[in-house]
Amino acid sequence: MQPSEKAHSIQFLEDQLQDVITLLAKQQLEQSLVQRGPAVNHELVEAMLKNQHQARLQEKFSLMHPADIGFILESLPLAQRKTAWDVIKTLHDGQVLLEVSDAVRQTLILGMEAEELAIVAGKLNADEIADLAADLPKRTMLKILRSLNSKKRKHLNAILSCQDNQIGALMDFGMITIRDDLNLKAIIAYIRKLGKLPSHTDKLFVVDQYDKMQGILPLQRLLTHPPSQQVADVMVTDFIRFQIDQDAAEAARAFERYNLISAPVVDSDDKLQGRLCVDNILDFIREKTDEDLLIQAGVGEEEDLFSSVWKSARNRWGWLLINIVTAFASTRIIGVFEDIILQLVALASLMPIIAAMGGNTGNQTSMLIIRSLALGYINPSNISHLIKKELTLGLINGSFIGVILGLLSFLLYRDIALSIVMGSAMFINLLVAVLVGLGIPLMRYKWGKDPAVGTSVILTAITDSMGFFIFLGLASLFLIK
Amino acid sequence: MQPSEKAHSIQFLEDQLQDVITLLAKQQLEQSLVQRGPAVNHELVEAMLKNQHQARLQEKFSLMHPADIGFILESLPLAQRKTAWDVIKTLHDGQVLLEVSDAVRQTLILGMEAEELAIVAGKLNADEIADLAADLPKRTMLKILRSLNSKKRKHLNAILSCQDNQIGALMDFGMITIRDDLNLKAIIAYIRKLGKLPSHTDKLFVVDQYDKMQGILPLQRLLTHPPSQQVADVMVTDFIRFQIDQDAAEAARAFERYNLISAPVVDSDDKLQGRLCVDNILDFIREKTDEDLLIQAGVGEEEDLFSSVWKSARNRWGWLLINIVTAFASTRIIGVFEDIILQLVALASLMPIIAAMGGNTGNQTSMLIIRSLALGYINPSNISHLIKKELTLGLINGSFIGVILGLLSFLLYRDIALSIVMGSAMFINLLVAVLVGLGIPLMRYKWGKDPAVGTSVILTAITDSMGFFIFLGLASLFLIK
Repeated sequence: MQPSEKAHSIQFLEDQLQDVITLLAKQQLEQSLVQRGPAVNHELVEAMLKNQHQARLQEKFSLMHPADIGFILESLPLAQRKTAWDVIKTLHDGQVLLEVSDAVRQTLILGMEAEELAIVAGKLNADEIADLAADLPKRTMLKILRSLNSKKRKHLNAILSCQDNQIGALMDFGMITIRDDLNLKAIIAYIRKLGKLPSHTDKLFVVDQYDKMQGILPLQRLLTHPPSQQVADVMVTDFIRFQIDQDAAEAARAFERYNLISAPVVDSDDKLQGRLCVDNILDFIREKTDEDLLIQAGVGEEEDLFSSVWKSARNRWGWLLINIVTAFASTRIIGVFEDIILQLVALASLMPIIAAMGGNTGNQTSMLIIRSLALGYINPSNISHLIKKELTLGLINGSFIGVILGLLSFLLYRDIALSIVMGSAMFINLLVAVLVGLGIPLMRYKWGKDPAVGTSVILTAITDSMGFFIFLGLASLFLIK
Repeated sequence: MQPSEKAHSIQFLEDQLQDVITLLAKQQLEQSLVQRGPAVNHELVEAMLKNQHQARLQEKFSLMHPADIGFILESLPLAQRKTAWDVIKTLHDGQVLLEVSDAVRQTLILGMEAEELAIVAGKLNADEIADLAADLPKRTMLKILRSLNSKKRKHLNAILSCQDNQIGALMDFGMITIRDDLNLKAIIAYIRKLGKLPSHTDKLFVVDQYDKMQGILPLQRLLTHPPSQQVADVMVTDFIRFQIDQDAAEAARAFERYNLISAPVVDSDDKLQGRLCVDNILDFIREKTDEDLLIQAGVGEEEDLFSSVWKSARNRWGWLLINIVTAFASTRIIGVFEDIILQLVALASLMPIIAAMGGNTGNQTSMLIIRSLALGYINPSNISHLIKKELTLGLINGSFIGVILGLLSFLLYRDIALSIVMGSAMFINLLVAVLVGLGIPLMRYKWGKDPAVGTSVILTAITDSMGFFIFLGLASLFLIK
């Protein structure tokens, strides 16, 4: 359905949300009034009132775009979300399930019968069912698979057999294929007979009888060339196609670079398998970057704002437990130097600075490397240049910050030897930080792992413990008699 | 120009890059050989060799898509980038300048004369010139403005008068406008006469004589309805339009939700001002999320991988200096408690754990809030629910982690009183962390500031100092006689 004209404004959506909440609250209030009132015709009145509000809610939601309903469900606390969902789960043929985040989708699916789910999913396209597949119970999935026709089942299997990071996982099947021996007039007649084009159709795919890609026919060419011309003469033969098992991130970069709207996906025999559209690429980029941000902050995965407290807690404990381990490990180094601290207690308040500054500098370096790796800017021909630059930067930053910290600690403690140890330790730990900030993401990338995952935790653990070790070690060598 | 078929693979691009580097190296080698050889005809030979390699480079680049050239320039160290740019700066009419990052663009523009820049910019569209405007010297910009025709100048001024975060800053002017009293046949004839459509044309805009929006005519309808029908009968009148001064992030969310390809941008009188396309939205989302990631890691702005060391250093010093200040400030609290540490030195190695765990938990909370604010999921109706949930989570996490840390420190020091102080301090600091992690982004958002900026630094400063204060304060109350 067409999104309503005003719906794109966040203010409008918030007003809608307010309305929904008011309706939900009224329904609950009146139910409780009925329950507290005389028991005469209790069930009848309740059912009547409930029906009345359900009808109003249903009417409201039926006028809304599935994506807007999704937005409202995301913003509703669990209990209200459940009430609202009960009213609308059969509206829009399951489209709403596609528009919410994974975390919210799980809360919605939990409240549905296997039978209901199978009916809803049956109305979706193969690529849409594939989006839901991970969240559906296995039994429901089997039921759905059995109910599909063979073409749809083949499409669904094609997507499900791809890994999440492969292009095949993002493709859909809304492509229009034509033969190259027709003329444009026949093509236009064919489209007119179809009555509508799949969304994001900016080009038709020209294939031979074995489904091998021959070329693409942009709608623009269809519209601007004389109708009597043959497809073969008008089609573009040098075009971008993607391999079904290629890395999805590579496709995302290609869509950004060449401003694509849709592109064919082929197998190793150049046979057309599906199509990739910019809307799925947009979702992919949003998900990937959100994931990177959350990982950076130590949150396991996308979280439903209103998930139960226990679920959220479990999602965050993973990193927190790792942090406890690394924090204890790095501070054990302080334990070794307790005698030194007793002799010069100023060390206790200076040492966290060395550790913290190391972590900060290391994170700067590693984030730039992670981002450049993601954009594909780092390769064997420039890597040595890059390492040299970051090391030089580490030397400069180390000297600069080392001198500043040396001066500041002299102002505090009026102890030249202590200030020199402070400055030198800072200098050395910043070099360590740069080396680690370069090393971890590059190593992880080389070994085929996501360079973003875990880098920050490992880096901080190393810069913390090295910071304590270098500072207290230098102090024990040069400050303590 | 059409991107080449193979160009979307990163392997292909890396091979291209290798070739370019080899050519550049040959050129330099032969130049130095000539310089070291006998001085006979020195300049002539050098010029000949240089020309030969330049021609080969130029040929290579002229076959490449501007975006691919941009990729190669991003991956080339400064000196090589400059040599390559000298060869190709007039190719592709300035398109390459649009395809590189801001940081790299500055290095390219630095090497060009004002005259050259004006000529190149003159060939671009108004929205493309606007993209360059921030990086062009003022004098050059004036020269360009004078050379434009009045329509292009009006367009350019319309974009430049918008702020970076407004929709107007992202619009282009490649829209095709039609009147509603024509029939579809006339529109098709008109398009055929135009000979080509601007990229991303999925709909035509129907306006009246005052340029007021009447409706949109999707190409799909143009292709599937009988040619004899009037535009007025076929056009869609309930469609999404954006206000020129609306928040660009809102447009991005609408493009994601409704899978738009293009949409009209209007002023407050509903007059058509320009159009918004998904390619610009994609760039906007990429830039915004990259910025968030870099800010999170304390890097000022997007950085050219190969910028001079001094420039990179300046870009990173801002946050590092702020970090020095906050690190010193929070550790001053330790200084106050030095006597306590002397009496119980175990405190010195336990206190960094309290501080670090507080920072980690606070960052988890704040990142989820920042992300939910960015997606528009938080609003007055659910905020109290959300705060309650995060506080409950803080209580649970605090008890859980408090107990673990208490146990671990008992294992290390066999001191029950110390373990209880450790656990309690952790519990209190985790509550502080949740409050601060909630408070800072919500406050900044309420005051109309970007909730992502600076949150992590302020949060860590508070959880560090509060961590030290709570732990050492409790220790001085309960552990020291």
